[in-house]
Amino acid sequence: MTDLLIRNIRPMGGAARDILVRSGRIAAMGTMAAEGAPVLEGGGRLAIPGLVEAHAHLDKTLWGMAWYRNEVGPRLIDKIDNERAAKKTLGIDARRQSARQVALTVGHGSTHIRTHVDVDTECGVSSIEGVMATRDAHAEHVDMQIVAFPQSGLLVRPGTVELLDQAMRLGADVVGGLDPCAIDRDPKGHLDAVFGLAQQHGKGVDIHLHEPGEMGVFSMELIIERAEALGMRGQSVVISHAFCLGMPDTAAVDRLLADLARAEVAIMTTGTPSRPVPPLQRARAAGVVVGSGSDGIRDTWGPYGNADLLERAMFLGMRNNLRRDDEVELALDVCTTGGAAMMGLTDYGLAVGRPADMVLLPGATLTEAVVSRPRDRIVLKRGRVTARDGAAAFEVA
Amino acid sequence: MTDLLIRNIRPMGGAARDILVRSGRIAAMGTMAAEGAPVLEGGGRLAIPGLVEAHAHLDKTLWGMAWYRNEVGPRLIDKIDNERAAKKTLGIDARRQSARQVALTVGHGSTHIRTHVDVDTECGVSSIEGVMATRDAHAEHVDMQIVAFPQSGLLVRPGTVELLDQAMRLGADVVGGLDPCAIDRDPKGHLDAVFGLAQQHGKGVDIHLHEPGEMGVFSMELIIERAEALGMRGQSVVISHAFCLGMPDTAAVDRLLADLARAEVAIMTTGTPSRPVPPLQRARAAGVVVGSGSDGIRDTWGPYGNADLLERAMFLGMRNNLRRDDEVELALDVCTTGGAAMMGLTDYGLAVGRPADMVLLPGATLTEAVVSRPRDRIVLKRGRVTARDGAAAFEVA
Repeated sequence: MTDLLIRNIRPMGGAARDILVRSGRIAAMGTMAAEGAPVLEGGGRLAIPGLVEAHAHLDKTLWGMAWYRNEVGPRLIDKIDNERAAKKTLGIDARRQSARQVALTVGHGSTHIRTHVDVDTECGVSSIEGVMATRDAHAEHVDMQIVAFPQSGLLVRPGTVELLDQAMRLGADVVGGLDPCAIDRDPKGHLDAVFGLAQQHGKGVDIHLHEPGEMGVFSMELIIERAEALGMRGQSVVISHAFCLGMPDTAAVDRLLADLARAEVAIMTTGTPSRPVPPLQRARAAGVVVGSGSDGIRDTWGPYGNADLLERAMFLGMRNNLRRDDEVELALDVCTTGGAAMMGLTDYGLAVGRPADMVLLPGATLTEAVVSRPRDRIVLKRGRVTARDGAAAFEVA
Repeated sequence: MTDLLIRNIRPMGGAARDILVRSGRIAAMGTMAAEGAPVLEGGGRLAIPGLVEAHAHLDKTLWGMAWYRNEVGPRLIDKIDNERAAKKTLGIDARRQSARQVALTVGHGSTHIRTHVDVDTECGVSSIEGVMATRDAHAEHVDMQIVAFPQSGLLVRPGTVELLDQAMRLGADVVGGLDPCAIDRDPKGHLDAVFGLAQQHGKGVDIHLHEPGEMGVFSMELIIERAEALGMRGQSVVISHAFCLGMPDTAAVDRLLADLARAEVAIMTTGTPSRPVPPLQRARAAGVVVGSGSDGIRDTWGPYGNADLLERAMFLGMRNNLRRDDEVELALDVCTTGGAAMMGLTDYGLAVGRPADMVLLPGATLTEAVVSRPRDRIVLKRGRVTARDGAAAFEVA
């Protein structure tokens, strides 16, 4: 792979340096001569490692389709049922739509994506196949993990466990789960099935846990028990959303955070402003690995979202009342290094020897970049420019 | 004033129409010939009335100044004290900074601003004078109301009441107040002083009320009592933030909402994600007038904000879990018509006879515009283009 000299950038807002890329990796950082390598002029931009979209739903965004007028009912199950039907009536093609969202996500600076993909008794594993096709087509633009996700329930819809098994055999990376009490009505059965599949395939799990308060605490305890009993350490178990950690009982929350840290179970929070959310600073202080993501964007659930993980860092900061520069930098860290740790990535970071996955963007400081969310961004994946000014440098169907 | 024909726009997302402007006002809406008037081609854009920035702090943004590294302590009083000192050490000039924020605000589509302006025993009324100079300099670009705001406390800092009186005599439009219990430690004394000044000058009041829970309820009751006793109807009394309305005791909240509606006392909410906030839909359903605003942007309190009231509508929607299109349209209404009502504007709206204050912007629907926050906007004030593509069409010092 061609060498590249990235000149005059400020890694993490520090002093101006050059970065030499060889074979897609950071070969050196400092001040150096081009010596024949092509030069990318950084113009004094900040450099941060590639943003990490650690929780997406690529298979079901409506991005690029006709505007969908949302008139869906208020309950969670209304949205789930409406979506399953809309996939057919609107023609939400998982391959096409996931490719569109990949372009959008990379355009904003992400170099890694973990996406949950619906598996149910109506769509079967077709969405998994569609997103896998996108993963293959864009392998040079983004690294992708696929979670086989029982969005419509696991035990409540017989046949779904077998479909999850099929999805894992096809090549999904992680076994998904969803609200063991509130949706599946059988927490032990649900979690035994999810962890059973994970053990069978030698993979991790990533469970959507929207359950509030004490119900969520109960489910979280069951998850941590299984992670520890099965020796699934090192963030191979992730709890997404974890709204129960936003409950007012801070003593209970602190106990859970200590349990999560000890068990090396990670959490993912989007900083949803309308729900209780995990306290970011306390979770990090307790040693819990925290990633973040966009969750669904512009889908039948709601119209919000643009797959910009830099904006997500701002949302996390606003939600957690982070005002000091060091606090805002923590939010950015969650959207980069935190997400990478949550995804179990070991070959990540703005350091010599690591893949040249990074974003160059204007700003006096990291915090200014987070709150300004400049459109002017240069995104590199393994040393190649994949996006400029918010637009992917590649075409999607 | 020159006539203008705005061709092919979709008012509030409806069918394409033309708008004829005469003498700065909407003279006709329909399909019509130019008949010699200059033509502004709308290209099928949506048209909405001018956005209303109903709660700003123009005098103390750091926008355009060197990046300020925030290392301020966690308490409210830390931020207040730090800011009062920083005004001198950083050289935060109220005239210069307010002009910068006017350009930013108009650039995003606002045609009206209510700004609180600090009055205290250190800066005296100098910030009021600075913002008044900006109001005069940009009178053709934006309509502005100035609230004389005792940011550092009223009774706790002797001499401030007299300074507020001076600010009102200089030409401030509204008497401000701040946390009668939590900051001023004397709710009766504080509110009697604020309402006394308002009566004396024949003006309204707009009180920052951050006080949570039962303390905030108590202060709110005292405010409503005074509004009713003094016959200050028609939103001449505004309670900004009103965090206590976000308390879990929904019965108490519903009672307060009914009281506010009966007394014609309006509220202003930014939809702060890190605090309890007034429930938007329930407040509107109860008949309470609700406006919104940016609050402080990029100041010594925190780095967030960009004075974009369209993005504010999105924040309100996200905070209040508004997902249906009709719900998101409600959030936009708060940032337009709601803010106008809160400010007591009677000459506002996208209707024949009203000033031609509007924003033209792309989008299939209003909801798409809110969640996409397109940079492509044409802003008109009394029929003249004041901004395009996010940039004001006028210079500031």
